[in-house]
Amino acid sequence: MTADLNYELQVNLQERSYPVRIGFDLLSSGEQVCPWVAGEQVFILSNEIVAPLYLSRLKEALAGLSVNELILPDGEQHKNLNSLARVFDALVAHRHRRTTTILALGGGVIGDLAGFAAACYQRGVAFIQIPTTLLAQVDSSVGGKTAVNHPQGKNMIGAFYQPKLVLADLSLLTTLPEREYRAGIAELVKHAIIYSAELFYWLEQSVDELNKWNPDVLAEALYRSVSIKAEIVAADEREAGLREQLNFGHTFGHALEVVTGYGEWLHGEAVAMGMSLALQLSVKEGWLEPEQSIRVRSLLEALKLPTLLPSGLSADALRTAMTVDKKSTSKGLKLILLEGIGKARSTT
Amino acid sequence: MTADLNYELQVNLQERSYPVRIGFDLLSSGEQVCPWVAGEQVFILSNEIVAPLYLSRLKEALAGLSVNELILPDGEQHKNLNSLARVFDALVAHRHRRTTTILALGGGVIGDLAGFAAACYQRGVAFIQIPTTLLAQVDSSVGGKTAVNHPQGKNMIGAFYQPKLVLADLSLLTTLPEREYRAGIAELVKHAIIYSAELFYWLEQSVDELNKWNPDVLAEALYRSVSIKAEIVAADEREAGLREQLNFGHTFGHALEVVTGYGEWLHGEAVAMGMSLALQLSVKEGWLEPEQSIRVRSLLEALKLPTLLPSGLSADALRTAMTVDKKSTSKGLKLILLEGIGKARSTT
Repeated sequence: MTADLNYELQVNLQERSYPVRIGFDLLSSGEQVCPWVAGEQVFILSNEIVAPLYLSRLKEALAGLSVNELILPDGEQHKNLNSLARVFDALVAHRHRRTTTILALGGGVIGDLAGFAAACYQRGVAFIQIPTTLLAQVDSSVGGKTAVNHPQGKNMIGAFYQPKLVLADLSLLTTLPEREYRAGIAELVKHAIIYSAELFYWLEQSVDELNKWNPDVLAEALYRSVSIKAEIVAADEREAGLREQLNFGHTFGHALEVVTGYGEWLHGEAVAMGMSLALQLSVKEGWLEPEQSIRVRSLLEALKLPTLLPSGLSADALRTAMTVDKKSTSKGLKLILLEGIGKARSTT
Repeated sequence: MTADLNYELQVNLQERSYPVRIGFDLLSSGEQVCPWVAGEQVFILSNEIVAPLYLSRLKEALAGLSVNELILPDGEQHKNLNSLARVFDALVAHRHRRTTTILALGGGVIGDLAGFAAACYQRGVAFIQIPTTLLAQVDSSVGGKTAVNHPQGKNMIGAFYQPKLVLADLSLLTTLPEREYRAGIAELVKHAIIYSAELFYWLEQSVDELNKWNPDVLAEALYRSVSIKAEIVAADEREAGLREQLNFGHTFGHALEVVTGYGEWLHGEAVAMGMSLALQLSVKEGWLEPEQSIRVRSLLEALKLPTLLPSGLSADALRTAMTVDKKSTSKGLKLILLEGIGKARSTT
């Protein structure tokens, strides 16, 4: 199989700029990865679901380099300081130097952990993202947010640390469970909802093809959605303003993840639910026309995303969890609401 | 008592620039600290030796702000991921937000830990250094190197993260044990050895006053030595070249600390020993005239610093420990050697 690169875009951050390459069978080709490896050592972080499927293929592509790996259990509940310590132990045990490259082969959990480990190991080593879930391809692998969770708060411990390359190989999604695919679609749609009415309308027209996993439509949707994220990150890397809008649905979503325990809801599912709550509040605050809210919610539902809170869940518990959220300020909770399709704004 | 500011210098790093203020009784005055606090929350990290002496005085200076603290046991053996996790637990438990300021009140261990915690908590919060040892005042509090140790390698996990302010209050040294004072003198002298023959000659002439802790001579020595560090850091923040010279004596020194177990040798003592070994190697490699090596070593001895390896210590164990050091590259160990007084250079 030869690599089939469909799209390439650049995240423009001066000396920290890097490409996002989107296509099919990219993992099979050493030339897609090796030029971005810093030295002769590579350390792959993956998980027990992904490694049996793709690790050997990746290692073939890295032939000639000195490669070590660590395979973690799957799931958000493992994105913590203990797993991070295991990464450092393995790096030190295999004598990885400052010139090593850490490679994340997995979803958002693996990418966030590997990126944070790369940010801290010897005060910073090179880092490559090979996201294997749609959510990681469309969102978490791009933009340099890395972190682990604290039992009382998601992503409370982390760093802004950009990768050298994001390689989004859509062929890897053939083994992705339906539920994980939907979770990724949630973040993909989010970029349109907050930033591009044009993409939103195109997504409305593409619902059937997206629900059928049409590879060409998916590749275009991914490219257009990631382009929005790249533009926002380039404008505001450290989230001083504009980038906050990417948190649309996330304050509610994070609280949901904390209250139900990490791993119960997929992150993308929690964000879809959170966007639905943010839409309600946008209407209630008088920012958004009810018809627009209904239209956005209809798209989420057409894409089979959750928009209704389960009956057992207490709104009070959600509220308490939200006050620990990173978006909390002394003036109260900063929320991202919608003013119109393709137009988000912060409450403070 | 009113604050008595003797010297101020600036570490020039564009938007990350900050002042180093050197003087007496600075801790007693809120105006020396409060203008650099980011919001209304402050989190003080200190240790069991320093806190009983100075914490209440500092908290008085911070009157009106919301202050929490964590007091760790003293010693290099506590500069690890476990202590870091305790800091995060305390920050989350007291609901510290992105606008909080972490304040290090202690020596190098506390400063490195607090700085790394500030770099990672919510992906980065404000940070102030109030170093209470001479070593921290002259070296570790300036330049933004933060880290924790790994059992197999010193400072293996960390970040480059600059403080907003370094407040070097020489009055705090009155409670410093003699041995800690000597350890600080080692790093103070190092800056002269590698970078300034002029300061070196002045230190030779000031030996008696330094051994007597003459406060005015000490303040001038501190100012002149820190000025060198600030100049080097401003030229090469992330240690791509020039800043490596600050590691003079450190590869040997770190190995000594690892082999003997953290806490047995003070860091400054290990560095003095390491500089002595580096001098020997500089002569052996033909870089340095033997008379110059003797002159440097004489100054170290006049300042009562260790220059002879204890008989029980194996050179082999040191060598193994050195291959894990961060300065290790695929081409072998990178060492900083001396070409003359005030002139260091890297071996690779």
